Amino acid sequence: MRQVSIVGIGQIPVEKESSLSLRQMGAGVVRLAMEDAGIEQVDALFAGNMLADELQGQKHIATLIASELGLVGVEALQVRAATATGAASLRMAYFAVASGQADLAVAMGVEKMSSAPATGVLAKALDAEREIPTGATLISQNAHLMQMYMDRYGVDYSVFANFAVNAHRNACTNPLALFHKEVTPDVVLKSRLINPPLRLFDCSPICDGAAAVVLAPTDQARALTDHSVRVLASSVATDWLVVDDRPDPLALEAGRRSAQVAYRRAGIGPEAIDFFEVHDAFSIMACLILEACGFAQRGEGWRLAAEGAIFREGALPISTMGGLKARGHPIGATALYQTCEIVQQLTGRAGANQLPDPRIAMLQSVGGAAATVLTHIFARDDEAR
Amino acid sequence: MRQVSIVGIGQIPVEKESSLSLRQMGAGVVRLAMEDAGIEQVDALFAGNMLADELQGQKHIATLIASELGLVGVEALQVRAATATGAASLRMAYFAVASGQADLAVAMGVEKMSSAPATGVLAKALDAEREIPTGATLISQNAHLMQMYMDRYGVDYSVFANFAVNAHRNACTNPLALFHKEVTPDVVLKSRLINPPLRLFDCSPICDGAAAVVLAPTDQARALTDHSVRVLASSVATDWLVVDDRPDPLALEAGRRSAQVAYRRAGIGPEAIDFFEVHDAFSIMACLILEACGFAQRGEGWRLAAEGAIFREGALPISTMGGLKARGHPIGATALYQTCEIVQQLTGRAGANQLPDPRIAMLQSVGGAAATVLTHIFARDDEAR
Repeated sequence: MRQVSIVGIGQIPVEKESSLSLRQMGAGVVRLAMEDAGIEQVDALFAGNMLADELQGQKHIATLIASELGLVGVEALQVRAATATGAASLRMAYFAVASGQADLAVAMGVEKMSSAPATGVLAKALDAEREIPTGATLISQNAHLMQMYMDRYGVDYSVFANFAVNAHRNACTNPLALFHKEVTPDVVLKSRLINPPLRLFDCSPICDGAAAVVLAPTDQARALTDHSVRVLASSVATDWLVVDDRPDPLALEAGRRSAQVAYRRAGIGPEAIDFFEVHDAFSIMACLILEACGFAQRGEGWRLAAEGAIFREGALPISTMGGLKARGHPIGATALYQTCEIVQQLTGRAGANQLPDPRIAMLQSVGGAAATVLTHIFARDDEAR
Repeated sequence: MRQVSIVGIGQIPVEKESSLSLRQMGAGVVRLAMEDAGIEQVDALFAGNMLADELQGQKHIATLIASELGLVGVEALQVRAATATGAASLRMAYFAVASGQADLAVAMGVEKMSSAPATGVLAKALDAEREIPTGATLISQNAHLMQMYMDRYGVDYSVFANFAVNAHRNACTNPLALFHKEVTPDVVLKSRLINPPLRLFDCSPICDGAAAVVLAPTDQARALTDHSVRVLASSVATDWLVVDDRPDPLALEAGRRSAQVAYRRAGIGPEAIDFFEVHDAFSIMACLILEACGFAQRGEGWRLAAEGAIFREGALPISTMGGLKARGHPIGATALYQTCEIVQQLTGRAGANQLPDPRIAMLQSVGGAAATVLTHIFARDDEAR
């Protein structure tokens, strides 16, 4: 299997409602990523998108983007893993380059959620026969997990507040983020109740966005760029689709297993991770992920927030550019934004948000109510050698 | 890159309206394929499905199927290429095994088109902004291509009749096919006009179905089964999404390019192909594919039908188990049915439809109005060695 590196990144600002069309957003970020890599052609383009079927009436996304770019002839396929779709796109591009079927592959994601009400469409990530008819949505399932967590471990709602505080603080200095406003714990705790115990600041926003990365074989990366980032590991694991079927829904088994496989493939453990882009679609999900990935004992993930470890100056910075909560969570694009941000951090291009000399980063992406979880681990290419 | 072989197949009968649910159909064929391979666990499952978002309100298909099978923990992702979606699933599983990220990977496809009107949903394979608003559907675009073909080459509608005659003849003896009724050229020529010049027998039917194959590294295949089939090549190419943007819509550039790449990867040319499972969603598409893949000169693909080369006893049998026209075309499952049928033929398990000693077969799968085309070439594993 060939080693794979990222040689270019492309992102546009996350917006509440973009003036660009889906195709313009998607084509735009691929163009930016190709420019960043200094290339004018690719072999393959993998597109992540979850909602265009309903929101734009479009089911041929990958070829639409390739066509819009004039990349006629190129391989183009769409891939999905519900709300982890962007990471699935990254994995497919990784497959293509690792297997030798492509030398230059783009993983891109785009989502334009402003076109029509998205919440009901997002709920289709749950079981259509067994969960949706009971009124379940991604929001209600996360509320369910949060209440279960608070009850089992006897913690108060307030222990989660720093997840939003950290995300908003980091988003303030990320020009591409949706929100540029700091929040205090008090603002979080008094924010509107959405679905008890979830409040407004526990939930990532509906928004428009697109991001892309270019992958190449590591042994060809240096010829293209002097700031490549190695993909040390890529993995996927699943859990029972229906939350109530899981022996312990708080165990986040797919997250645990996906991380374990990724650690094994990378030949490292959690202690080697310098920062972590988590799937903070909901504050409870960020907390559960920290536990599932081995950064905290069960029932203690909230401590990393409450005690400040997740801040940029802490022991395990998360959501360093604003996270899903404050950069925004345009579903199919989200993991690609995170990958771009990891590349920015590892190559010293994170601007005001730059961490001091990070070398290894992890990304975990959650599909639905953690039924499908993808993990990717990245390293500076000089570190990986 | 590792060589990849198919070590198990699973199919259920194509039906106008299955009494099984989407998940039951999907899980059923994966179980059959795993039984055929003699395995009880897989590393990864790639699911092909195009329409469940709208028709079943379900957007987490791959994990739904894995969950239904109790394959908890396994990698599961969904992949799409509009109406070529089943072939995209096969390509992803090929990637996973070829790259070494999985040893046993299932490629499966399922479509339950009977749940709600499907034609408008299928049209989303076209450009949502530039084609659909003009009233275009997959049917109207194929009618457009057929009329253009008849006008340019001065051929009569009757020259296409044998595509349906052949498909229906072969379906009669395939117990899994939707139709079991022979048709004469006269029946075809007098059938109901759907969208001039397309008549009923030029069009594949709306139906329910599911199929799956298990892939393994070739060097491990012999330990699992004595009837494995090698994947000699896998490729994807795209064209302009909008039919009218193409310099010559009848050239089927994505089909030509995809075939050329596949031939190169397999190290063979069209003359080596013993039989060809074509994407005969419409008779004109089968005709154009034969030309694009080098089996006939431009403007002469119809001759292979009219002169009988496409029949089982002819020089280039196509649709040997009934094709999309008469076995049926449950979109996401179609290319997996074809792959199963190719395995049946190459391993002497095609029953009454068995060709005499075929060694190399090709599959071409068309997404939308040929905007995305996948080609796969297969060989008996003894032949490939």
